[in-house]
Amino acid sequence: MLPFSRVAIIGLGLIGSSIARAVKDAMPGVALSGFDADADVRERARALRLCDDIADSAGAAVTDADFVILCVPVGAMAAAARDIAHDLPDDAVISDVGSSKGSVVAALREALPDAAIVPAHPVAGTERSGPEAGFAALFRNRWCILTPPEGTDPLAIERVGEFWKRLGAKIETMEPAHHDRVLAVTSHLPHLIAYTIVGTASDLEEVTSSDVIKYSAGGFRDFTRIAASDPTMWRDVFLSNREAVLDMLQRFSEDLSALQRAIRWGKGDELFDLFTRTRAVRRSIVEQGQDDAREDFGRSHE
Amino acid sequence: MLPFSRVAIIGLGLIGSSIARAVKDAMPGVALSGFDADADVRERARALRLCDDIADSAGAAVTDADFVILCVPVGAMAAAARDIAHDLPDDAVISDVGSSKGSVVAALREALPDAAIVPAHPVAGTERSGPEAGFAALFRNRWCILTPPEGTDPLAIERVGEFWKRLGAKIETMEPAHHDRVLAVTSHLPHLIAYTIVGTASDLEEVTSSDVIKYSAGGFRDFTRIAASDPTMWRDVFLSNREAVLDMLQRFSEDLSALQRAIRWGKGDELFDLFTRTRAVRRSIVEQGQDDAREDFGRSHE
Ligand SMILES: NC(=O)c1ccc[n+]([C@@H]2O[C@H](COP(=O)([O-])OP(=O)(O)OC[C@H]3O[C@@H](n4cnc5c(N)ncnc54)[C@H](OP(=O)(O)O)[C@@H]3O)[C@@H](O)[C@H]2O)c1
Ligand SMILES: NC(=O)c1ccc[n+]([C@@H]2O[C@H](COP(=O)([O-])OP(=O)(O)OC[C@H]3O[C@@H](n4cnc5c(N)ncnc54)[C@H](OP(=O)(O)O)[C@@H]3O)[C@@H](O)[C@H]2O)c1
Repeated sequence: MLPFSRVAIIGLGLIGSSIARAVKDAMPGVALSGFDADADVRERARALRLCDDIADSAGAAVTDADFVILCVPVGAMAAAARDIAHDLPDDAVISDVGSSKGSVVAALREALPDAAIVPAHPVAGTERSGPEAGFAALFRNRWCILTPPEGTDPLAIERVGEFWKRLGAKIETMEPAHHDRVLAVTSHLPHLIAYTIVGTASDLEEVTSSDVIKYSAGGFRDFTRIAASDPTMWRDVFLSNREAVLDMLQRFSEDLSALQRAIRWGKGDELFDLFTRTRAVRRSIVEQGQDDAREDFGRSHE
Repeated sequence: MLPFSRVAIIGLGLIGSSIARAVKDAMPGVALSGFDADADVRERARALRLCDDIADSAGAAVTDADFVILCVPVGAMAAAARDIAHDLPDDAVISDVGSSKGSVVAALREALPDAAIVPAHPVAGTERSGPEAGFAALFRNRWCILTPPEGTDPLAIERVGEFWKRLGAKIETMEPAHHDRVLAVTSHLPHLIAYTIVGTASDLEEVTSSDVIKYSAGGFRDFTRIAASDPTMWRDVFLSNREAVLDMLQRFSEDLSALQRAIRWGKGDELFDLFTRTRAVRRSIVEQGQDDAREDFGRSHE
């Protein structure tokens, strides 16, 4: 049996439009409605036939739904929840896809105190955004983390889990605070660092940006790809997961200082030991199917 | 006309074996000899038929050569040059592929005071190493930077440039010190940071390494790929380009502190501005053909 039969997606960017496509593929019987705050995005979503119906207000999109997923930047979750509060059917289950969870859980509970809320975070994405960027296979074999507040109806949790499984994801459940610490290190800190180094490189005087771009194949280009991710989304992630991000950043800075000292004092063995240890982490990631083993990010060398 | 007709490659790892394969493809008339300090690598190179002849000593490999390329870790360049000094023909041109240039230029000049030396750095690579990892197309459309010391015979420089053009590379010439600063930011710093963050993540207590690996698709896995590069090569790069690396690291740390403050004080506009600026750098890299535009590093999502 389908976990839900009338799904509403609020926010039709990369993640919202990927969910829409994946639902059409995996659960063709589901009635899909959608809404985006941006009229231009709504037009493009209609042209792409992402949903059966693209409504012109958030309320109209959810009025018949048994499942509503908020796919807007983390900082817009509270507003998006308030916008649907009046029209939301009593028995609808609410979820979201925000990249940080503690602040989102709090915002949703405040805006929708009586609703069944099962927050989720599909750990999958690309550096693109907008409705054209989505694709149905985005969630396949990726983890989707559920962070239901205490006291949530177990049946609602199960249905949301089943929904994501149908889209190809694997399910894990954890406390919002633990989610935010794990993602701070596996996602937020990497993005923060990539943004920083690309900024540092652009600000050099004697090394021109033309030099930087020409010789970027030595590693830098991989950071620019990460640092091309959506500015609004990432601003919101850092502000909403401030505490965990700052803690991880502190640890990273200490480790970087240690490495700096090792270089300054010519401690080759220390460098070699760290570099050997990090190789093993890579092996585990490939073994556990969280990345493919192709070298050089699978770039073709034609 | 071929720039050289008898080429010797010392060190048959990723770069040496890629050069061997590319020479066979692009200049089949060239006689290729090779040597590696590791007997096992020599055996594997013979099995792969990388060269016409794999010698059992460095001297024997170069005795007939008109062009010798040292493809060993930067810290082994001095020893590799000393090993061939006695057998090197008077008119042979010497080059190398080391990722840092200042210290290598000095080491080669000291070991081979009378030779024509044209140091080079092909800005191309993968995270793999060893003779099996090489492929002929590695240098295609990538830059190869020549850093000839003052007074080098212009004809020797031209022939080395022509050699790399035949392998598909584009040529640029610059001072060793400028090379070392440019590469410190486009290659050495990115690797240093990737090694650090993978180390930081492995050392957390409440976030287990199983968590880190499971949820690595949010950005972390891209860093592990870079941090899987050869430990010996990278130890040598950081030690040999110490000054420029430490300077870039200092600037990076300052920028990171500024971002840390922006997060701590909730300065969303500052974050948004930086993240918008870094997006533009990415666009330039794709426009100038130094990376392809495919999202998510071109990973297949099957
Ligand atoms: N991208 C990733 O890799 C990734 C991965 C996992 C989770 N997530 C999470 O998924 C969510 C969406 O990210 P995305 O990458 O899909 O972003 P996106 O492509 O930028 O799409 C977000 C869309 O939501 C719209 N929107 C903003 N506020 C709204 C509101 N109050 N009501 C209705 N629509 C609104 C935006 O319109 P405007 O442009 O006009 O504001 C935009 O069209 C974020 O919470 C993010 O943290 C992202
Ligand atoms: N990998 C890249 O992305 C890249 C890109 C551009 C330039 N480079 C530069 O290219 C050079 C080679 O790197 P690579 O990636 O090809 O490394 P690699 O795959 O590890 O190969 C290096 C080979 O040289 C051998 N060797 C070490 N000392 C030697 C000596 N004195 N005489 C003869 N052989 C010796 C090594 O044997 P053992 O293993 O027994 O020591 C190894 O087989 C380095 O200077 C590096 O900085 C690398």
